[in-house]
Amino acid sequence: MDTLILPTVRLRRGRLRLIDQTLLPGRYEVISLGTVEGVCEAIKSLRVRGAPALGVTGAYGLLVAVEERWGGDGHFVDAVIDETDGRDECIDGFPADVSVELLRAVLRDAAVQIGATRPTAVNLSWALKRMAKVFDADHADARALLRALLGEAVAIHTEDIDMCRRLGANGAELLSSGDAVITHCNTGGLATGGFGTALGVVFAAHEAGKRVAVFADETRPLLQGARLTAWECKQVGVPVTVLVDGAAASLLATGKVACAITGADRIAANGDTANKIGTLQLAIAARRYGVPFYVAAPTSTIDPAIPNGNHIPIEQRDADEVRAFAGRATTPEDVDAYNPAFDVTPADLVSGIITEDAVHYPPYEFGP
Amino acid sequence: MDTLILPTVRLRRGRLRLIDQTLLPGRYEVISLGTVEGVCEAIKSLRVRGAPALGVTGAYGLLVAVEERWGGDGHFVDAVIDETDGRDECIDGFPADVSVELLRAVLRDAAVQIGATRPTAVNLSWALKRMAKVFDADHADARALLRALLGEAVAIHTEDIDMCRRLGANGAELLSSGDAVITHCNTGGLATGGFGTALGVVFAAHEAGKRVAVFADETRPLLQGARLTAWECKQVGVPVTVLVDGAAASLLATGKVACAITGADRIAANGDTANKIGTLQLAIAARRYGVPFYVAAPTSTIDPAIPNGNHIPIEQRDADEVRAFAGRATTPEDVDAYNPAFDVTPADLVSGIITEDAVHYPPYEFGP
Repeated sequence: MDTLILPTVRLRRGRLRLIDQTLLPGRYEVISLGTVEGVCEAIKSLRVRGAPALGVTGAYGLLVAVEERWGGDGHFVDAVIDETDGRDECIDGFPADVSVELLRAVLRDAAVQIGATRPTAVNLSWALKRMAKVFDADHADARALLRALLGEAVAIHTEDIDMCRRLGANGAELLSSGDAVITHCNTGGLATGGFGTALGVVFAAHEAGKRVAVFADETRPLLQGARLTAWECKQVGVPVTVLVDGAAASLLATGKVACAITGADRIAANGDTANKIGTLQLAIAARRYGVPFYVAAPTSTIDPAIPNGNHIPIEQRDADEVRAFAGRATTPEDVDAYNPAFDVTPADLVSGIITEDAVHYPPYEFGP
Repeated sequence: MDTLILPTVRLRRGRLRLIDQTLLPGRYEVISLGTVEGVCEAIKSLRVRGAPALGVTGAYGLLVAVEERWGGDGHFVDAVIDETDGRDECIDGFPADVSVELLRAVLRDAAVQIGATRPTAVNLSWALKRMAKVFDADHADARALLRALLGEAVAIHTEDIDMCRRLGANGAELLSSGDAVITHCNTGGLATGGFGTALGVVFAAHEAGKRVAVFADETRPLLQGARLTAWECKQVGVPVTVLVDGAAASLLATGKVACAITGADRIAANGDTANKIGTLQLAIAARRYGVPFYVAAPTSTIDPAIPNGNHIPIEQRDADEVRAFAGRATTPEDVDAYNPAFDVTPADLVSGIITEDAVHYPPYEFGP
């Protein structure tokens, strides 16, 4: 049963279909892209964001390149996944006279273009590399190459959903009926192939028949919690209450919250966890009030080569994210701003790390 | 030397002059009000806000009522205070034939109107009661009453500035040259008679020649830190950096902040402190990183009748403050919001309470 899977990113009838996240929560609109340029614009404008979702977008984007070059009015590739019908992909009618070499050249070009949109997005380049391995391999003809390529893109997508499903099931064991969970940022279907990591844990518990509710930190400066997490919970039917980030400690003090669950951008070998700015503050407050603080992330987020959080660089983002909102200045012009993209929560504050394999408890030893 | 006093509220040539705080930081504009209705509108629309500032506004507002009734093109009352010249008030040309009774009736009417604008603002009703005590007392004639009334209004104003000055001096002792202070909400001249409480401590240190800098929490939902604290620091020449509320823990972890200083809405006998939502979170994070957390507030904020913070009611404010900003929705329509106006920081997290009399240290015993 896949009813909780959001159609964040799809490849249907040769076109990439995306939920335009810049319009949420005001408007739900699925945009349909038939050119590589369109795919690149969507990534750059954050119409699609979230590391796993970007990986899937990049993979499907290469198939859009093929459609753009040879598709005309018809289409060759189609993939139906994550609906109740299960997975079904096909290729159809690709011209027999296209050479493997020409097809490969078109794909290489597209991979370079798409990869340049967000050079620091690890999942995007990871997915494009996986796709390149396939199109660089030997194939009997262009059709065989295309078939293999579509299979790989769908695999990237379904593996992400499967990972989220398993992670969600592991995490759901920690929740009881009646529990309220506080979250930070957006870690749901919109950020992934369609199900979510930290928010996926809540959805898995909901799906298992547990009455669970979400308190969503709005998550300044970009408000992913207010805009996206609240919207997703409404879609799924999970009760949701939004709060400003500064109100979390006050809420935790009331005893109404069973646990905090957030995602992770990177986890060091000792369990120190980098995540969206504001996560550390939530973890510290949770500890003060004896509320368990869990991190939910795929195993691929754990970097055994990094001994601890001190080795994770902190990216400072544009001051304008803090200085304005919705186009209106909120501070005096040109005031300085401290705007790190993420913070590092030390392992001693992390009650457990939920992955697709297991729930890990301290002491964390992910080293090589 | 009073150069750091902001002209937040003034009574000049019979008119109330206010810095319109709703236009800051985009525009600095002093509005001039000649009617009771205008004064009431300014309070209701938050053109003036901050407990001490409202008390001064209410007191001067009664004199505006007299001008409105009898002033015509001229004016009777004028008060020059808080500039380098010191204090100078005068009344001039008030008609000799006005009876004490008629003057009193006009003042009573105005006090009722102004008092109804923000019924829960303790300082506003406190100031109006002080003024009523003066106009209800015996007076030789209406001119004598008016003179006494102007004296009382100026006393309310100058006492606030004196209190802030003494509080600032006490607090400034805690700061060294090179220190950075993190603040929450706005507690500067705009919130008071012109100097400030928690931010007044920083200004006092700056005035004493210490190099101090401010990190200002933006303070969602109403952004008083981003809008007003940052603006005041720029006026005074104190270096200021704005951050989203969720970034405070990350900043404290860097070791760059010498201490946190916030204001207080009410302090219980045991030192538990109610203040703007987000203060508790800051105090908890400060403790984690060994950064002293100070509260700065006038002695009048301490309520010895309240044994501890559990007895302070938590006001829930309108969900729309969280759900939108500058008229644009940030969440799905009608989503629930948790939006308490303030939170309670337990005394064990408060390193010291700075008042106009002294810096108090734990254990706090303000009981009767």
